[in-house]
Order: sequence, then C-alpha cells, then structure tokens
Amino acid sequence: MSILIRDVDILPLDGSPLVRGGEIAIEGNRITVVGGTGSVTDDFKPEIVIDGQGLLASPGLINCHTHAAMTLFRGYADDLPLMKWLNNKIWPIEDKLTEEDIYWATMLACLEMIKSGTTAFADMYFHMDQVARAVSETGMRASLCRGLIGVAPNADEALEWSFGFAREFHESAEGRITVMLGPHAPYTCPPDYLRLVKDAAVELGVGVHIHLAETRSEVTQTAEGQGCTPVQLVERTGLFEVPVLAAHCVHLTDEDIAVLARYAVRVAHNPQSNMKLGSGVAPVVKLLEAGVMVGLGTDGAASNNDLDMVEEMRSASFLQKVTYEDPTVLPSDQALAMATLYGATALGLQDEVGTLEVGKKADIVLWDLQKPHLCPLHDVSAHLVYSARGSDARTVIVDGKVLMRDYEVLSLDEEAVMAEAERRARRLIAEVG
Amino acid sequence: MSILIRDVDILPLDGSPLVRGGEIAIEGNRITVVGGTGSVTDDFKPEIVIDGQGLLASPGLINCHTHAAMTLFRGYADDLPLMKWLNNKIWPIEDKLTEEDIYWATMLACLEMIKSGTTAFADMYFHMDQVARAVSETGMRASLCRGLIGVAPNADEALEWSFGFAREFHESAEGRITVMLGPHAPYTCPPDYLRLVKDAAVELGVGVHIHLAETRSEVTQTAEGQGCTPVQLVERTGLFEVPVLAAHCVHLTDEDIAVLARYAVRVAHNPQSNMKLGSGVAPVVKLLEAGVMVGLGTDGAASNNDLDMVEEMRSASFLQKVTYEDPTVLPSDQALAMATLYGATALGLQDEVGTLEVGKKADIVLWDLQKPHLCPLHDVSAHLVYSARGSDARTVIVDGKVLMRDYEVLSLDEEAVMAEAERRARRLIAEVG
Repeated sequence: MSILIRDVDILPLDGSPLVRGGEIAIEGNRITVVGGTGSVTDDFKPEIVIDGQGLLASPGLINCHTHAAMTLFRGYADDLPLMKWLNNKIWPIEDKLTEEDIYWATMLACLEMIKSGTTAFADMYFHMDQVARAVSETGMRASLCRGLIGVAPNADEALEWSFGFAREFHESAEGRITVMLGPHAPYTCPPDYLRLVKDAAVELGVGVHIHLAETRSEVTQTAEGQGCTPVQLVERTGLFEVPVLAAHCVHLTDEDIAVLARYAVRVAHNPQSNMKLGSGVAPVVKLLEAGVMVGLGTDGAASNNDLDMVEEMRSASFLQKVTYEDPTVLPSDQALAMATLYGATALGLQDEVGTLEVGKKADIVLWDLQKPHLCPLHDVSAHLVYSARGSDARTVIVDGKVLMRDYEVLSLDEEAVMAEAERRARRLIAEVG
Repeated sequence: MSILIRDVDILPLDGSPLVRGGEIAIEGNRITVVGGTGSVTDDFKPEIVIDGQGLLASPGLINCHTHAAMTLFRGYADDLPLMKWLNNKIWPIEDKLTEEDIYWATMLACLEMIKSGTTAFADMYFHMDQVARAVSETGMRASLCRGLIGVAPNADEALEWSFGFAREFHESAEGRITVMLGPHAPYTCPPDYLRLVKDAAVELGVGVHIHLAETRSEVTQTAEGQGCTPVQLVERTGLFEVPVLAAHCVHLTDEDIAVLARYAVRVAHNPQSNMKLGSGVAPVVKLLEAGVMVGLGTDGAASNNDLDMVEEMRSASFLQKVTYEDPTVLPSDQALAMATLYGATALGLQDEVGTLEVGKKADIVLWDLQKPHLCPLHDVSAHLVYSARGSDARTVIVDGKVLMRDYEVLSLDEEAVMAEAERRARRLIAEVG
C-alpha cells in the first residue's frame, strides 16, 4: 500500500518546526517523505491520495496504560470509595467476564481509541489472546501483558502462560503487537515473585509493565510492612534492571524519583484516573526534570471514564499547573511529547513510532482544524492540547494502513461492535444481580 | 412554534428520575408536557416533531462566567506567567478590538456554545451592545454586563453607560437577554465605587457580576492594603445586599465561605481556567456544604481554551476528588446540577430555566448516546459528566426555538462566522506586531 497526503499542515514532533501545506508519502508501513510542497517526486504513484487541506498531521497518540476491556464497565460504578468500588462492584463483575466478552470489550476500546486519534496502547488484563485478536483485526498497535497476581494460587501458572503468550505473540500481527510481562503491583507480587518475573523478562527479551505507588495507602502499607517505599521495594528485587513501564507513580519521594531516573524506568502518568479515583497528583514536573521518560495513559474506562488521549494531554498539563500554581509548567509542546515520543519510548518503540520522520512506521492522525472550538488558528500545538477533542481526529493511519477515513472506521463494523458490547454489558449486570 | 420530542430519554434534573422513552411538548417558548409515552394528548398538533430515539434530553448547560469575545485570542498566548500574559499579550491585543470584532468574536463564541450544548451564559466584557446583538441574532440566552474598572479615568462614564445599557437591554430579545452590572474586581474597584454600583443595582433592579478572590496575590495584596480578605472588603461596601454572581472564589477562608452563604452570593466556579492559569483549587465541596449556590463557567477562551461546559463538569468533579483525595465528593449528579439549575440560579433565572419542568422555558439539549465512548449505557448521568464530549450535543433548543438540529446550526452561518473570526484574528495579530 502507498499513500500520499498532500496540502497538509504537519507537526512532526521530532524537534523540527510545523510545516504548512506539506506532503507525507507512505510506502508499505513506513514514512518515506515528510516535507513542504514538492517534496514528493513525480515518480511516486500512490494508491491512495488524501487531500489534507484544513487538516493537521501529527504522530498517532500513544496510550501507555489501560485495561482496554474495562470499557464494558464504563459508568457502571462511580463516585465510590476505592475499596468498596473494587470489592463490591468491579471485582465481582470482572469475575463474570468470558473470553468472548474480553474480545468484544477490547474491540469497543479499539474503536473508541481509533476514533479519538490513538494509534497504540499498552494493555494489562487477562485472556490476552483475545486482546491480541482484537488488536490484530482492528489494525492497532499494542503492547500486551497479562496481569500477574503473585499472591494468587495460580501465580506460577500465570507466569508460565505469559511465557507462552510472549513466544507466540511478541512481534506478531506484522510487528504491531509486542508483549511485556505484567506483575500487577509490588503489593500483590512479593519480592520473590518479582525476581521470577525479572528472570523471565531477561530470558524472553521483553519489558515489564507494573502498577507502582498509585495510592497513599499503598505507600503506608509498604512502609509498615517492608520499611521502605514501593519504589525501593521493587528496586531491591532487581526488576528495574529490565525495561520497566511503571503506571501511576503518584506518591514518590525525591529519592524514589532519583531511583526511577537512574534505572531509566518509564512512567505512565494517568491524570484523569488519578483525579477520578482521588489517588493524588503525580510529581510529573519533577520526574521530567529528573530526566524520567513520562508517557500518558487513560487507565481503564471504569476509572476515567473514556479512552480519550486528547483529554489526558489537557488534564496532565492543567493538573501540574494548578498543583504548582504556575501556568508555565508542562506547556503544550511537552504534553504533546508525552502523548507521542515519550509514550513510544515507554513502550520501547521509540525507533519505530512517536514522530513523523522518514523511516519510521506510519502511525499518523489527521486532525480536522475547521471547527469553531479550534478557530482562530493561532497555535496548533496549543489547540491540540488545550482546545481539541478526541472527536476532531478525522483520519487515522496505523502501520501504513488507513483505519479511519473522514470519520468512518474502516477496520471494523462500528454499529455491530457497539451493539455486541451493549448486549454483553446487560448480561453481566444480570449475572451480578 | 410548537415542538414534540418523542421516544426520548429524559433527565429532568428537577429531582425526579430519568424517564425512558418519554415525550416533551413545547408550545411557544415554554415546556407544556414532560413525561412517559402517551403523556402528550392527541389534540396536540406540533409544527415540528423530533424523533428522540437514542437521544437523551437534558436542560441546556449554563455557562456562568465568560468573556465570550475572547474566542479571538484562543491559543494566542499560553503557558506564560499571569502578569506577563496580561501585560504583554492580552491587554495590548484587547486594546485593538473594534466593535465589529466584538460582534464577530461573540458570534463565534455563541456558535461554539450552541454546538456543545450550552444554552445560556453570563458575559462580562465591553462593547456589550455588540454582544447583545450577537445573542439576539443567534437565539441564545445571556446575562450581560460591561466590565467596570473603578480605578480607570472613565469609571463614572462606564457606570453611566451601564445604566443606559440596562434600561435598553434588560429583558430584551423576547426576554432572553438580562443585564447585570459588572464591577471587575475589588482590586480594580475601590470601596466607594462598589457602593455606587450597589446603589445603581438597587435602582435598576439588576444583579452584579464580579471577579472575587481569584488568585493568591489578590488575597495577599488585599491583606496588606486593607487588612482583610477580598470577601470581607466587598462585604463592607454593602454590595452583597444585592444579588451577586462572584466568579472564581478560589482563595477563601472558612469565614469568607460563611459570609458568602449568609448573603446568598452565587459563585461561578471555573475549574479549567483556574487550572490553566495556575490560580488554585476553589473549595467547592465546602461552599456547597455551606449552602452556597455554585454554578460553573469556562472563563474566556484565552484561559481555557474552549467554551465547553461538558469539560467544566468533568474538571469540576475530578479536581475536587483529587484535591480531597476522595472519589466520593462532587459526584456526577451534583456536577450536572451545577451546570444547570445552580447555574440558572446564579443568573437569577431559576424560575425560568435549569430543569425540564412544565411551565419552564424550553432550553433543551438532545445528547447523542449512540457513540463508542458512551457505550455501554449503564448510567446516563455519569456518562454526561465523565465520558461525554461537547460534540455529543446533537440538537439544541433555546426559548422554544431549534438553534441546532442534527448537528446543523440553524441560527447562524457557521462557515461565515469562522472565516470572519479568522480574518479578524489575523488583522489583530498584524496590528500588535
């Protein structure tokens, strides 16, 4: 497949400036030209030509932490204390999920993400072969891991399963799927189990995705039980010696931040989930200053309640500004970097995606700028972060394939996915009574 | 004009529960029937019938504090320290605004608000006759005031002008326009001037719209200069004896909150502006507990950067939850009340709008629920606050007139307004150099 996008404004986000009325050429799954008018030579005969007038091309947004199949629980239980929410609502209904539920719920998540300009995501859940099936079919890019509970009876079996999953699915679906190991958190995975996970990660050559320092009570309990912080606890296991994607990192000491920087741990910041669950405000400005790579994530739709990365950019910026009482911190270009290149780095894909550069894989969003809430057009970076909506994503390309064109999703049947998700949500509600 | 909306889910927000598959009848500018199927009698012969299948009817959202014409500065200057932003960017370009600029900028604001489900707004700016012209033409409802700077050379003249404006425009445009007096803030309006404004408000029988306790520096300077808080300063002038809409109220003592409650001062909370400008977090939970009526506002588009009230509901709820580290505070139904009935009360319109009740004026939004980010449909209140986008507003009715139907704005020419706003923004940029 070859594609030419012409007469399009381009925000490459690789350090080079905005291109007005430029051109992008795609051959196979890679970008072959990015530049001003006339950059593409006449001998390029594209199969698809997209008129980019009034549109802005940016790298696809990267959702660094989610539980995609939790879309089925969107709006099911809100405004509850954390443990009541988990114990009485989320865990009982999760217990009823079938493999097919996970497939359809992930299809719904992919649909929602494609429609809001997200091209890649990092997922931690279960029945991950069904998640891989949805990712494969919808054309998205994803880094997948099964959540591992070290204190559960099936802990060893789950790690064994993850071995098999990694061997079967890592770099599958034309390379769109990569695999990580997913120890849920240091408070559900004892140190010895984290050491097993680390050894497995080394053997498989994959990274690790973990929840870390999400709530104040996690920090308190770790201090009481282990006499250290969650970050120190994980450090002692040696897990940070493999590439780690740590979700949340809300409650950190300055020493914790130094540890994360020293081991090049990548952080997935989830501002809306942290706000909605009342978890707290992650020290993103300090993390970035310390050189930690911080990407953005939505977390699951039950604690957000959507998978809209445009909102995460905005919330990330706003939340730091209000916390520091300083409007200059986390400016729009930094929020955009977090949602693109930093996110790619968090997934270990920084050489493949995250910017619009020749040689990179073609994960591209064309944003429609011809809308009242984006008018007048002073600054496209500020507009994407402070004014845009996910629904301004007009055309989405992943791995050189057009997944959505002029708001129409091509890689799945939107109405069928919604109807099936709705039907399954009704059944789950009936089952939990 | 008479309208029947049938087969529609209805969230009346008057304390009564959600109606599934109900009916709403509108005759002239008022709601005459709200109820389940069969509520409307056969002798009602509507001129317009709207099929509400898959839609949710709610009261129109009410934006309690904005400077509508600042849409022209959306994305013009971001991520700057407050005084640098005002002194070097906003004030110089505001100085170049012509009457026609204000008209077109307000047309753009009305367009954006209609498209995102806002039916009424409270505006403080200048050339307010032009704002009234835009409101009159677009069919929106608004409470308008000229911003009065008591320390400016033209302070008395501006108050005099406001007298004439109130006499000409209060309850104009079929009653859609009401007028307030707009002393900018206690730090720009000395006590004697606020007393003059109070006397004028009594004479005119109108309310007052003022900025109050927005920043920490305002509080510090008032303490140093006057030995009291901004709220105490205003209280001493007697201004609170007339109906006051106080925007921001971020930095309050418990005693300030008691004062606001005692005088039934209405507060316009602007969470996204407070976040973006780094102003701080208003004590909304405490204000509501004290019985203060708190509405929501966007503030101007230069500090937001949009006029999307769905986002303000979400941000209001999330910001309180994260500040109190408690997911139970400011639940979705309270956020909805703030954006509707509490907002109506803030504008003194609680008997006219803010709920879907027989006898109230027909300010109604039909939200499209058939979207992936609103699927499955567990809880429509949670969906509106935590998952929806402004762009899910499909049909908007104000004062019994359909302003937008199936996403098409009928009361103005969308492309012409955007083109004119863009052209004027370019000219302003050229003028400030």
